[in-house]
Amino acid sequence: MSEYILVTGGAGYIGSHTVLELLSNGYKVIIVDNLSNSSYDAVARIEFVAKQAIPFFKVDLRDYDQLAVVFQAYKVTGVIHFAALKAVGESSQIPLDYYDNNVNGTITLLRAMKAHNVQTVVFSSSATVYGDVTRFGDNLMIPIPEHCPTDPTNPYGKTKRMIENILEDVYASDKANWTMGILRYFNPMGAHPSGLIGEDPLGIPNNLLPYLSQVAIGRRDKLSVFGSDYDSHDGTPIRDYIHVVDLAKGHISALNYLKKSTSGLYREWNLGTGKGSTVFEIYHAFCKVVGRELPYEVVGRRAGDVLDLTANPSRANEELEWKAELGIDDACSDLWRWTSANPFGFNLDNYSWKIVGDNYENRAHTVENGDLSVTFLNHGAIIQKLSYKGVSVVNGYENPQDYSLKTNPFFGTTVGRVANRIAHGKFSLNGTSYQVTQNEHPNTLHGGLSGYNTRKFLGPVVKEKEGIFTVEFYLKDADSPDGFPGNLDTYVKYKISQDTVEIEYQASLEDGSSVDATIVNLTNHSYFNITPNSTHDNTILKLASNQVLEVDENKIPTGKTITDTRISVNEPLKVTKDINYDTAFVVTKESHSIDTRGHELQQIVEASHPDSKIKLVISSTEPAFQFYTGDYTDTKGFGSRSGFCIEPSRYVDAINSEEWRDQVILKKGEVYGARIAYKIIG
Amino acid sequence: MSEYILVTGGAGYIGSHTVLELLSNGYKVIIVDNLSNSSYDAVARIEFVAKQAIPFFKVDLRDYDQLAVVFQAYKVTGVIHFAALKAVGESSQIPLDYYDNNVNGTITLLRAMKAHNVQTVVFSSSATVYGDVTRFGDNLMIPIPEHCPTDPTNPYGKTKRMIENILEDVYASDKANWTMGILRYFNPMGAHPSGLIGEDPLGIPNNLLPYLSQVAIGRRDKLSVFGSDYDSHDGTPIRDYIHVVDLAKGHISALNYLKKSTSGLYREWNLGTGKGSTVFEIYHAFCKVVGRELPYEVVGRRAGDVLDLTANPSRANEELEWKAELGIDDACSDLWRWTSANPFGFNLDNYSWKIVGDNYENRAHTVENGDLSVTFLNHGAIIQKLSYKGVSVVNGYENPQDYSLKTNPFFGTTVGRVANRIAHGKFSLNGTSYQVTQNEHPNTLHGGLSGYNTRKFLGPVVKEKEGIFTVEFYLKDADSPDGFPGNLDTYVKYKISQDTVEIEYQASLEDGSSVDATIVNLTNHSYFNITPNSTHDNTILKLASNQVLEVDENKIPTGKTITDTRISVNEPLKVTKDINYDTAFVVTKESHSIDTRGHELQQIVEASHPDSKIKLVISSTEPAFQFYTGDYTDTKGFGSRSGFCIEPSRYVDAINSEEWRDQVILKKGEVYGARIAYKIIG
Repeated sequence: MSEYILVTGGAGYIGSHTVLELLSNGYKVIIVDNLSNSSYDAVARIEFVAKQAIPFFKVDLRDYDQLAVVFQAYKVTGVIHFAALKAVGESSQIPLDYYDNNVNGTITLLRAMKAHNVQTVVFSSSATVYGDVTRFGDNLMIPIPEHCPTDPTNPYGKTKRMIENILEDVYASDKANWTMGILRYFNPMGAHPSGLIGEDPLGIPNNLLPYLSQVAIGRRDKLSVFGSDYDSHDGTPIRDYIHVVDLAKGHISALNYLKKSTSGLYREWNLGTGKGSTVFEIYHAFCKVVGRELPYEVVGRRAGDVLDLTANPSRANEELEWKAELGIDDACSDLWRWTSANPFGFNLDNYSWKIVGDNYENRAHTVENGDLSVTFLNHGAIIQKLSYKGVSVVNGYENPQDYSLKTNPFFGTTVGRVANRIAHGKFSLNGTSYQVTQNEHPNTLHGGLSGYNTRKFLGPVVKEKEGIFTVEFYLKDADSPDGFPGNLDTYVKYKISQDTVEIEYQASLEDGSSVDATIVNLTNHSYFNITPNSTHDNTILKLASNQVLEVDENKIPTGKTITDTRISVNEPLKVTKDINYDTAFVVTKESHSIDTRGHELQQIVEASHPDSKIKLVISSTEPAFQFYTGDYTDTKGFGSRSGFCIEPSRYVDAINSEEWRDQVILKKGEVYGARIAYKIIG
Repeated sequence: MSEYILVTGGAGYIGSHTVLELLSNGYKVIIVDNLSNSSYDAVARIEFVAKQAIPFFKVDLRDYDQLAVVFQAYKVTGVIHFAALKAVGESSQIPLDYYDNNVNGTITLLRAMKAHNVQTVVFSSSATVYGDVTRFGDNLMIPIPEHCPTDPTNPYGKTKRMIENILEDVYASDKANWTMGILRYFNPMGAHPSGLIGEDPLGIPNNLLPYLSQVAIGRRDKLSVFGSDYDSHDGTPIRDYIHVVDLAKGHISALNYLKKSTSGLYREWNLGTGKGSTVFEIYHAFCKVVGRELPYEVVGRRAGDVLDLTANPSRANEELEWKAELGIDDACSDLWRWTSANPFGFNLDNYSWKIVGDNYENRAHTVENGDLSVTFLNHGAIIQKLSYKGVSVVNGYENPQDYSLKTNPFFGTTVGRVANRIAHGKFSLNGTSYQVTQNEHPNTLHGGLSGYNTRKFLGPVVKEKEGIFTVEFYLKDADSPDGFPGNLDTYVKYKISQDTVEIEYQASLEDGSSVDATIVNLTNHSYFNITPNSTHDNTILKLASNQVLEVDENKIPTGKTITDTRISVNEPLKVTKDINYDTAFVVTKESHSIDTRGHELQQIVEASHPDSKIKLVISSTEPAFQFYTGDYTDTKGFGSRSGFCIEPSRYVDAINSEEWRDQVILKKGEVYGARIAYKIIG
């Protein structure tokens, strides 16, 4: 049974960064968060960045029973406890909520930990517990050491100090077994270098940099500087700003320290840089990164503010062998990368999602862009719905759980690792011969029994820039049950404009792959029907090719290309009931590259219908496409010929053809790529 | 809608005394207690002493939903918050329980108060929050003023201080509307002068006097005096001992102060005497009351103990106009009265109770004394069960709720205000004529429609002394719906020895009664059946009289006494099926007193049966008894002649007879009394 670190508030600002550090340090993590002040999208992005799934539980810490369920389900060896309300100002207006969330929440967490013999905890405290250290006179307690007496001046700070007291008493009641690390943060700033995770304050930010960054992207008019008459070189107060990634690393150091400890332990550590910066210094550093002077106004001092709150971090430096390594400039540029790519944090207008089933593994993600509406699932990175001006373009189950039906004919799914057929499931690569699952006797079809249509993709990362939405999923195709060589990092990125859904596939062997090469062939298996009818009959198609691959009795190409005489290139073909296809068309015989993304999108099909107000144009960068009239569809809600498929991809069974195999062989260090576009005219 | 003060922990030591003070100051009270460290019997006794019912809810403060139900059901105008765990030593061993109970509990309570716009609270704090005030050097902070800095030295004290902090922040968040009084207790001691309420520590007492009193009654060997080498005149530490009744009164003063306050308020007050006493001084004072030297041993100092913790109570003296009035000697004698009458507090061996229905109003109380087992209900102060060596002697419903059945023939109930019949429900008293409900046309029977058989009695107070148990119920028969004049304080006291249940009735007009006289006639209406059979047929009775009251067609005595020729006095009468009685027998023609309790118990019936191993002897102090063979019984589980009744009482319709009326007229200042005994031989 593998061991987990349970992180409360793991979807929050510092929590999410710490989870990433835990993962990159080899810890397995469970996230518990009530999402009251955070977003699940942060978790989805953590999974995307970390390339792994993370057990998530939407649980409020005050709910002992729900908490107990988590502790029973997993072997938890330690807890990092972030979950808390944290707005100083708000805490004075609604103190009960703060005491209830923070103090009750912690007590309940500790009860659950005790009941399940989990006695290691790292607690997210704050320098706020020290209160106004200038009360000790000139610099006696600056920089602030851990032994500085505490005297928090607001309910938020008091909850943190109360929790420290409670932890200390709990430790004292069983000194042999509890190990507790109290981390007192100074001023966290910055964001994850990936630009995918960062601070996403709800409402008006309370802290300098989040506010400043919102000024930079135009969400706020100007920064208010609270007092420039302090006794500092530029008159603004001095704080100890620490990069959130350094802060996160401090938790790993503390956790490791506790785990190494041979006896029980209760210990406080300051997490700060030891170097103070004024508000103006931060302001200028950030303006430099943004590349312009941001508007600000000096206003009166803020109640409770003091001149200098700089940490003395030497205890953490020495005992935890931890030290802040990043500077203000790193923090500012990371923050700006995050903010400019995610101006509204995790929340995007015209994007919404809902859970499918009973956990967050599979969600339905809907993007509305003008007249276009499209819904994707984590399951298979499927296109569940695609409609334009209310006209449905693709077939899909209304209930996302139906995608697991045995009769599901690959509706809208990403197809991989190898789309279409492999003769007898056999191929050889670098002198090794492979046998993969023959799921369509005698061949392998669409990646075998555990093809991508059966997988839960991670993410998505959803962004919007200049009116174009991107929805990007990730799948690690590892330890292929069907026998494909190597572990594949697969990205499926959907770009949604107001009239087009473009799909970009990108795949590469994972770092340190055990094999030098594998085979890849990805496509999307949407069934199109632009009519209001139960079948696509009499849809008029203009096909960009009439060259088809001749196939043997097992639907495997013979190597010959022949001309389909029923079709004249780009001339209307009325697909009446008697016209049946399940055929590979050749777009070009020249493509031998593993990454076609650089190629021009080529129109391969235009579809229209007398009963439809819209036209569908399908293009791709791929050398071939499978045209299937869907004659054999027979599933919940959809019968024969309810939709037709156009599956742009590499040649069928290319791997077993000397001439075509380089289309599908992906070597270590190289990138497989392809693009497909569904454009709607109407 | 009447207004209530909600008292949390109202079943506890200080809580119960405060509830009594609230009631005697005209407040209506709701008690909320989880009974985790207290007993409902305390509440029953409060009701008994206060002569009124008190809404009680067994609710844990951490259960918001249950708490909300209480606030929704009643108009609460203020809260006095006692509920807490309070053992200093224990708090260091199980701190989480202390933080959870005390801090969580208070936060949840405050949330419920806020949600229901209840913003007045008196909080039960403790001098413990000051910690070791000797840290300030010689007497700088002794006697201890409220402005003394706090620094509790144990988890218990910390929970109290945290709660003060939370309250202060909640107040600060809405200063206009919250009024909060923080009462910091010094050392409560003593008990209620009634001897019915007092401290009932579970396990080994932590405090001096409870421990000492247990030494006095032999529950503990000897007192341990923790250190006699302190710098006091006799070497033992000095504390400020305050009589619990004075302490309780402090809460009323604080509550009144808060209610008078025109603006919001948060204020701490010490509740102490201002006069310190040493351990030895207390020891000697208590020994004096007990009348002998109690064993003690001087042992080492106790960790955390300090020389002197005396209050400076002047703030409470001045602002609350409150002052401790009782001294150590009062406290000691009150404590001793309580302890000697209740050596094991509220818990009695061989006495147990269970709730009937869904609240505490009606409980079934069982006393086992040797071979005798008897069960009473609050409902009607009924004898539900009476058995000897497993032989059932009386009839009663197995399910206590069945006593409300329309067909219930007064099984085992107390009968009142006037037992038996009143002709046409008419009588005149001091020139006023009264008409009471004619519930048995044309007469009034057994007190009318809302006779005592329909009432919930308060209590009981259960005690044991030298092998005799007493179970005493109280009923205030007020605003008689049936039209009887005046409000009657009625006590029904059962004395249970190993072979006899004796009933004592006592009634008097309430203090300040609006009428000068009323009429009373009380009895018990048990149906006897000493056989294993479904009827009492062939029971052999020896009756002490064959003089019966002649009655008219309405069963009202004509005034003549006649001889029943079927009966010879004290000779066996075999009560065969054909012998039917519902007849008043005369025991004496001489009794004219309203209180017969002083009279000798006179045997009136001896019952035996060939199928029974036991004999039943019924005696009373009453001048007459009704003999009923139960021919008309027809109810759940019991048919005709399932039991016979012997109802000792005053003459039937005495009030309407010039000759007999003084038997039933109770004048203001006088006491009605009677005794009945059921003795079992076997």
